[in-house]
Amino acid sequence: MENYKATQRDTLFVTQELLGMEAHYQALGFEDATDDLIRAIYGEAAKFAENVLAPLNQVGDDEGCTFNDGVVTTPTGFKEAYKQYVDGGWPSMAHPVEFGGQGLPYSLATTMAEWFSGANHSWAMYPGLSQGCMETLKANGTPEQQEVYLTKLIEGSWTGTMCLTEPHCGSDLGMLKCKAEPTDNGAYKLTGTKIFISAGEHDMSDNIIHLVLARLPDAPQGTKGISLFLVPKFNVDGSGNILDRNTVKCGSIEHKMGIKGSATCVMNFDEAKGFLVGEPNRGLACMFTFMNIARIGTGMEGLSATEASYQGALAYAKDRLQFRSLTGKKNPDGPADPIIVHPDVRRMLLTQKSLAEGKRAMAVYCMKMVDTTLYSDDIEAKKTAEAKLALLTPIVKAFLTETAQEATSYGMQIYGGHGYIKEWGMEQLARDTRICTMYEGTTGIQAIDLLARKVIGSNGELLKVFATEIKTYCAGLRGQSQFNAWANAIDSHVDEWIQISTDIAVSAQSNPDELGAAAVDYLMYAGYITVGYFWLQMAVTAQQKLDEGSSEDDFYRAKIMTAKFYFDRMLTRTRSLVSAIHSGSENLMQMEEALFSVGK
Amino acid sequence: MENYKATQRDTLFVTQELLGMEAHYQALGFEDATDDLIRAIYGEAAKFAENVLAPLNQVGDDEGCTFNDGVVTTPTGFKEAYKQYVDGGWPSMAHPVEFGGQGLPYSLATTMAEWFSGANHSWAMYPGLSQGCMETLKANGTPEQQEVYLTKLIEGSWTGTMCLTEPHCGSDLGMLKCKAEPTDNGAYKLTGTKIFISAGEHDMSDNIIHLVLARLPDAPQGTKGISLFLVPKFNVDGSGNILDRNTVKCGSIEHKMGIKGSATCVMNFDEAKGFLVGEPNRGLACMFTFMNIARIGTGMEGLSATEASYQGALAYAKDRLQFRSLTGKKNPDGPADPIIVHPDVRRMLLTQKSLAEGKRAMAVYCMKMVDTTLYSDDIEAKKTAEAKLALLTPIVKAFLTETAQEATSYGMQIYGGHGYIKEWGMEQLARDTRICTMYEGTTGIQAIDLLARKVIGSNGELLKVFATEIKTYCAGLRGQSQFNAWANAIDSHVDEWIQISTDIAVSAQSNPDELGAAAVDYLMYAGYITVGYFWLQMAVTAQQKLDEGSSEDDFYRAKIMTAKFYFDRMLTRTRSLVSAIHSGSENLMQMEEALFSVGK
Repeated sequence: MENYKATQRDTLFVTQELLGMEAHYQALGFEDATDDLIRAIYGEAAKFAENVLAPLNQVGDDEGCTFNDGVVTTPTGFKEAYKQYVDGGWPSMAHPVEFGGQGLPYSLATTMAEWFSGANHSWAMYPGLSQGCMETLKANGTPEQQEVYLTKLIEGSWTGTMCLTEPHCGSDLGMLKCKAEPTDNGAYKLTGTKIFISAGEHDMSDNIIHLVLARLPDAPQGTKGISLFLVPKFNVDGSGNILDRNTVKCGSIEHKMGIKGSATCVMNFDEAKGFLVGEPNRGLACMFTFMNIARIGTGMEGLSATEASYQGALAYAKDRLQFRSLTGKKNPDGPADPIIVHPDVRRMLLTQKSLAEGKRAMAVYCMKMVDTTLYSDDIEAKKTAEAKLALLTPIVKAFLTETAQEATSYGMQIYGGHGYIKEWGMEQLARDTRICTMYEGTTGIQAIDLLARKVIGSNGELLKVFATEIKTYCAGLRGQSQFNAWANAIDSHVDEWIQISTDIAVSAQSNPDELGAAAVDYLMYAGYITVGYFWLQMAVTAQQKLDEGSSEDDFYRAKIMTAKFYFDRMLTRTRSLVSAIHSGSENLMQMEEALFSVGK
Repeated sequence: MENYKATQRDTLFVTQELLGMEAHYQALGFEDATDDLIRAIYGEAAKFAENVLAPLNQVGDDEGCTFNDGVVTTPTGFKEAYKQYVDGGWPSMAHPVEFGGQGLPYSLATTMAEWFSGANHSWAMYPGLSQGCMETLKANGTPEQQEVYLTKLIEGSWTGTMCLTEPHCGSDLGMLKCKAEPTDNGAYKLTGTKIFISAGEHDMSDNIIHLVLARLPDAPQGTKGISLFLVPKFNVDGSGNILDRNTVKCGSIEHKMGIKGSATCVMNFDEAKGFLVGEPNRGLACMFTFMNIARIGTGMEGLSATEASYQGALAYAKDRLQFRSLTGKKNPDGPADPIIVHPDVRRMLLTQKSLAEGKRAMAVYCMKMVDTTLYSDDIEAKKTAEAKLALLTPIVKAFLTETAQEATSYGMQIYGGHGYIKEWGMEQLARDTRICTMYEGTTGIQAIDLLARKVIGSNGELLKVFATEIKTYCAGLRGQSQFNAWANAIDSHVDEWIQISTDIAVSAQSNPDELGAAAVDYLMYAGYITVGYFWLQMAVTAQQKLDEGSSEDDFYRAKIMTAKFYFDRMLTRTRSLVSAIHSGSENLMQMEEALFSVGK
């Protein structure tokens, strides 16, 4: 979408008015991260997203990446945009000063990632993956690895990847086969094939640092025998000077439904030189920081697409004239009324709007929690933030991306047949965001993580921490008659959420398939409640601003009206999800495998 | 999907066992349409779909159509497949013998259209549009038009189009501007631009017959001033011999998300020679036969994609090994279990399966009703069929296509990241079927047609006719304890459906926006109930077969298990839809237009 606008005003509402990020930053010791600085950075990020990235979005889709004998060329303009990104200092924002970073908080840098992805999903994946690589090295690299590699990554002159998937194993990493053999000089030789490696090869940076999961000789089977290795595209010396080409090569790139400007590579490791990162056989543990951050990042991509599709659909709905309003002409001088007068068009627009704004609040809230886990000295606060983040991460990943499918589909639907035509950009948003429920762990994987590992695995403790926050907030609203109904709705949903969790835990004791049978509906159910909680808070905050007297009455009134839509028409989706959850596993498991194909 | 299989067994279950089509054909005087003939024709159609059309599906997507100075070239093999289709006598099957047709019933020819579209959506659109053109000429053409044009269309040597949409008017045809000026010789000169004309130009047939909506001079404004014209690509003489090129030309073709093998044309009429079809200013009425048939046909496309996606996903789910079942190894000799052991994969597969089979029953039922409206001498039976068809047509169009979005999305999701890669064909199914909720009247248009025009416009009479059928059927099951719960569920849903309709009618009296606010949720609600009614019947039929003793126990057991899934997990979706319907229009209409974009 060429006309994409960064949501500066709404993001400031979430960060400054709803979540009090300035005070949060001050409390964590980020004294520079003042309201003024935040606004200044937002302004620059918005310009970059709108003026540099958005105009390249359709180009990326039209041209895609090209592959020729191991060399990947990114679409016209991608390389130049990356240079501007590096020159602007964006890669280094939230990294330690000692490695050349700017020492600003994590959430400040990542909040804006919504705009980069909203303007150009494919392009934003290159620096996005690189950030994941940096976090992993920051948490697990040796001082030497950090000195040589992390510095260059933070600078942006090199980029990074994460190499997990192999042809026969995606979700089930325990099956991975890639081998790492020790050599005499402390390095390793890596051999195997990795697939679906985003940014595995491209023309934007001087070197590419692959973080690769592989097995040492005699490593235990399964996930307990996986180690993490750093494998550079070009070998380098101790000062980071580039030496010879390493024997890791891109074998081909995938032809995909969307994100065509993002190179999805098959990477062949042929005794490639690599270095162990972290402890042997602890590779998955080293990846966890990255994977959790990447999951929130993927959730953000779902948010980005939702917002971008809303903006595109809204412009068309105000412009396209078709039929008269059933309650009388609204555009008497024109041949018909703009389609935004029709209730069903509004239903689709408000679905997009309420999802975009609600998901934004939820995502930024999670990033605030990440800050606390990374920087806080308050052990209790850290523990609480970790608990909330553990619970919410799979919800953010899956709910924000699943609802993006609906939102981007509505974006097309509002255009009618025009939505299907490439030039409008609406169908690209739908295609690009379709990957988000699959990569970084499918919705099914997130759902099992949430229900089995997080909720039941903690005996309900993680849920209790978040539920307490919500119930306390709702209790604090008692007596405020304006929000009574919504607060009661959220409060009773949370009680029901806890009860349902208990019910599933009990039934799963005799039949573990009850977990898988409930998981995805349970996750979506949790998502609608969580976003509902943020809508309640946003409505209350908006009303406070109105009560105080504001020059932005329209902004706050729109918030409250959008909240009403959410409570009336989105939160109520929990009713069918509860029915599905309660229906149990028999309706899924009773059919023998052969019967699925009988009569075909 | 190259491995697409026509659903001969399941279609025979629906036509012969569930709906008694053989007896139906005999009663309508189609003595040739015996069970043997039906099976023989199905066999040939299946071969054509599987062996000729399916292998061209991916080719069509990869190559698309090409445009060069007014000439459109279809993808490799499309033209040859069309020749085989003509040589096989397929175009003429359900047309009158007097025009060279085979005189078989409508539903016999159209039931198989599922397979043509399932094998190759894009290709199937060329003959599909042509059939619509034939129906319109059959119903409205002069004897001379039928003699010259219809004969050639039925033969298949010419194809036809329907030219409705213009750049500024899609749903709102009242705004159309295309002009038709009478000439001295009884013909007309047509001038204007039509867009989104499927098969408007291509290389498959010797001539293309456009049916074009246009305005006569001094025609009334709006829909009451629209007439229908026949405009051939090549002018012909009274014997159908081709003369000179007419001044209608393809100006360009669209670049679309999917159905890339289908040419979507901008057609420029520059004083093109045309002939009036039907009465002046009655063009829309002439189109109604076509539009209703096209809507059922589009619903069928949604069914086709659902089935094809299920087949692809099922094959992968049985093949792909990933993780162990939570209830113990199911494939102890392999490195992991096939993913079909996992409840959530089964949830997605059964969603696809229960939708495909339920929608098939509903679609064929509608085609049976079309037969009755076309051929029956029994005035009462005809009236009843017309009433049911009027009610069900918008539901078939919108519900079958909306649920195809979910089904084809699950088809990708079951593949994980591989679902996003073009070579597997799953993402093409999702892209191709995405158009179906938009063309031939969007879901929003169908929903208003159903609720405002059909249900409330008939004072509930149309709904009553169908509701009576359902309630009578459910009452007949009383005492059969096995199906009591399901019959009661359908019966009480029907009562609720009637009540909700009344509620909306009452609230719409004071505020017409209540119609638009409820419409789409109301249509989806009606769809889940209707398909549930067919699942009830299918389960009862299957149990009868089991009770009688059958060599196909697995087929019938699978039906009953799939019905259970539908009742447990699909029909329950009505709960959230009811909540949304009851929430009314305020949550949609209170926001001033300007507030939608405030803060953006």
